Amino acid sequence: MDLNIKINNNGHLDIGGADTCDLVEQFGTPVYVIDENRIRDNYNRFYNAFSKYYSDFKVFYACKANTNIAVLKILEEERCCIDAVSPGEVYISKKLGFSGDRILFSGNNIRNDEIEFVNGEDVILNIDSVSALKRLAESIKPNGKKISFRVNPMVGAGHHGHCITGGEMSKFGIMETEAVEIYKLAKELGFNPVGMHSHIGSGILNPEPFKLAIESTMNIAGKVHLEAGIDFEFIDFGGGVGIPYTPDENLVDLDTFAKENMALFKAKLEEFDMGQPTLYLEPGRFIVGDSSVLLVTVNSVKESYRKFIGVDAGFNTLLRPAMYDSYHHIVVANKMNEEATQKVDVAGNVCESGDLFARDRPLPDIEEGDILAILNAGAYGFTMASNYNSHPLPAEILVKDGEAFVIRKAQTFDDIFEKQSIPKHLE
Amino acid sequence: MDLNIKINNNGHLDIGGADTCDLVEQFGTPVYVIDENRIRDNYNRFYNAFSKYYSDFKVFYACKANTNIAVLKILEEERCCIDAVSPGEVYISKKLGFSGDRILFSGNNIRNDEIEFVNGEDVILNIDSVSALKRLAESIKPNGKKISFRVNPMVGAGHHGHCITGGEMSKFGIMETEAVEIYKLAKELGFNPVGMHSHIGSGILNPEPFKLAIESTMNIAGKVHLEAGIDFEFIDFGGGVGIPYTPDENLVDLDTFAKENMALFKAKLEEFDMGQPTLYLEPGRFIVGDSSVLLVTVNSVKESYRKFIGVDAGFNTLLRPAMYDSYHHIVVANKMNEEATQKVDVAGNVCESGDLFARDRPLPDIEEGDILAILNAGAYGFTMASNYNSHPLPAEILVKDGEAFVIRKAQTFDDIFEKQSIPKHLE
Repeated sequence: MDLNIKINNNGHLDIGGADTCDLVEQFGTPVYVIDENRIRDNYNRFYNAFSKYYSDFKVFYACKANTNIAVLKILEEERCCIDAVSPGEVYISKKLGFSGDRILFSGNNIRNDEIEFVNGEDVILNIDSVSALKRLAESIKPNGKKISFRVNPMVGAGHHGHCITGGEMSKFGIMETEAVEIYKLAKELGFNPVGMHSHIGSGILNPEPFKLAIESTMNIAGKVHLEAGIDFEFIDFGGGVGIPYTPDENLVDLDTFAKENMALFKAKLEEFDMGQPTLYLEPGRFIVGDSSVLLVTVNSVKESYRKFIGVDAGFNTLLRPAMYDSYHHIVVANKMNEEATQKVDVAGNVCESGDLFARDRPLPDIEEGDILAILNAGAYGFTMASNYNSHPLPAEILVKDGEAFVIRKAQTFDDIFEKQSIPKHLE
Repeated sequence: MDLNIKINNNGHLDIGGADTCDLVEQFGTPVYVIDENRIRDNYNRFYNAFSKYYSDFKVFYACKANTNIAVLKILEEERCCIDAVSPGEVYISKKLGFSGDRILFSGNNIRNDEIEFVNGEDVILNIDSVSALKRLAESIKPNGKKISFRVNPMVGAGHHGHCITGGEMSKFGIMETEAVEIYKLAKELGFNPVGMHSHIGSGILNPEPFKLAIESTMNIAGKVHLEAGIDFEFIDFGGGVGIPYTPDENLVDLDTFAKENMALFKAKLEEFDMGQPTLYLEPGRFIVGDSSVLLVTVNSVKESYRKFIGVDAGFNTLLRPAMYDSYHHIVVANKMNEEATQKVDVAGNVCESGDLFARDRPLPDIEEGDILAILNAGAYGFTMASNYNSHPLPAEILVKDGEAFVIRKAQTFDDIFEKQSIPKHLE
């Protein structure tokens, strides 16, 4: 089993050298815990795998997966770059020390004032539509500004229909058939279009779908190079490299993944005589997904028509199981050496029947007060959390070499209602 | 068509006497706008419909649908009561002037410290499991405290699988077969169990599923009355009364709904010789759903393999379409008198392909800068919103008789990152 699980001498779940049960005693539940070294390690494994086969390579971390500022700071130290999808992500990345050339902005359906803000931050602009190109030309002076276009390579892959971002149903990217014209138009408007971007989906565990995307994207890039006279400074194949969520899934064989995909990439560069543009990749989940657990307390063990293990977090805390039917492995943090004895439903504390973290999950005997760890909570965990049911957002703890740091304080009730006010006539 | 749509003399969408286009000019987009009078009207229609057939009746507003404090204050003025599902909802209701006897707390999987907090606020406790009953008895002195139990009536209904809360897959309530024993146990522990609660689902537009629930719940209540000697002071059939979301759906015929269901209720009270307990109902969506619209700006019109209308909000702003595949009617607020000429996808600004408010929706010609109104956004709209993609939460505006009041300020970027901090070793 390739899941990131470590057990200490007390038979408890360990994260980054800390005992999760001690962390719960100190910080309460629900709480997200992030292992700093795992993030560094994931980043370096990813960077090294691809740079071995293609040296001119940069990693743009898809920060929508986890924008905690401590996480971003760790990656800044590693000299990682940022894939930002909103003005807010650009804002925080700049504030944390990422220079504009280390931030690629791929906005979707952004307002003119947002385009202007992002352009003012001097980041690399990745344009998604003719509409955005024209609005950009109107709202800023092109002046030879370097830009990139997102293309839709008509290949989709991923773990859930919502996350397949290539193909004809997708709202993203420009069409293959319009690519040459758009790069020409960009030049006419005074821009310097030097990049091409694609992204096919997420949760991809083997090289094949990625190869199709590289092939398809490079065919478009080659055509644009030949017919629109564009010399590409960078090509960006987006993210999508997955991690194992279930005990049956395996870690991506990164060396094979990189080797096969880079061989294809280089062959295509040669085929179209495109020189050696910088390769960008945008992993998100791969960097942070398995670095983190969500710790919750069992409040109630309920024998109803089914057996329900009730915990003190819900889909407001971790949305993926309820929204995408995503599997998150769950362990009993204080009983790591006990065997499964039963199949149970793990239910959250939100007032909706869909608020379940698992159905029919094999787990050991569970009593009220036990601590459950929901694994792989580092990507699309906290960033999708809400105040639904007026539950305050939980704390986030960073662990490094056994030491724990509060990197986000839990909300209070007053925080939830802070921006609100009652008009005079209702007072 | 029964949708709540008003058009003013400028051909613009009106809400509460205000021109939505003027509101956008004043407050920007995305923005939630709530019509105060519609909430008052919905409440009174609901209250009057049922009290006509059963006078000892109280409405407990299911505030998880919309906890904006101005909305709660309006309902407080109307003498409505509160159905709270979390300590946070109890906290804010108390703060706004609802006395404890006007708040029914139906928690699911709550921690002991949460039980103690809620009990300290002296609200009516509705217990969901033997586990919660025992923990309650341990953590407070029962001292004849009046409580209620939620039962699972084995009838489920609703607009989405996630929202069917009765039946054997549901995590909610105690089983029919254990009801008598639990009421007896509660008495032995020193409580005074005087209420019974059930809730079968939501989005129900006709009386039939509700009748099944009343029949089933009353059979349990009757048995508990006879065999455990409980004299019920109140019976609560929960919420679930729906509203039309599509142009084909009709407003619930409230008079028929109330008449048929109250006839059954009274027959069952008589059958089991149960006297005249107070009837509680818990509408949420019905009270606030059609009181509100989400206004967004069209940023991009994109002819790709499909036609996409891109707007400046996403599923972080309104989750229901992406999560439940819910239909929300959409109109062009500045072109209300124009006919549909095309079918388009209305896409949000979140970086996920599932971020769509509509597929193949018939709409008039649309240009960038047009204002779309997403209707029926008052229930489970803002309360489910998040900062996903680092988008700030939008403002909420209350409109009364044409006058507009900011009842929630939009977040800034700094608000999103406010509770976070970077440990020394990363500075």
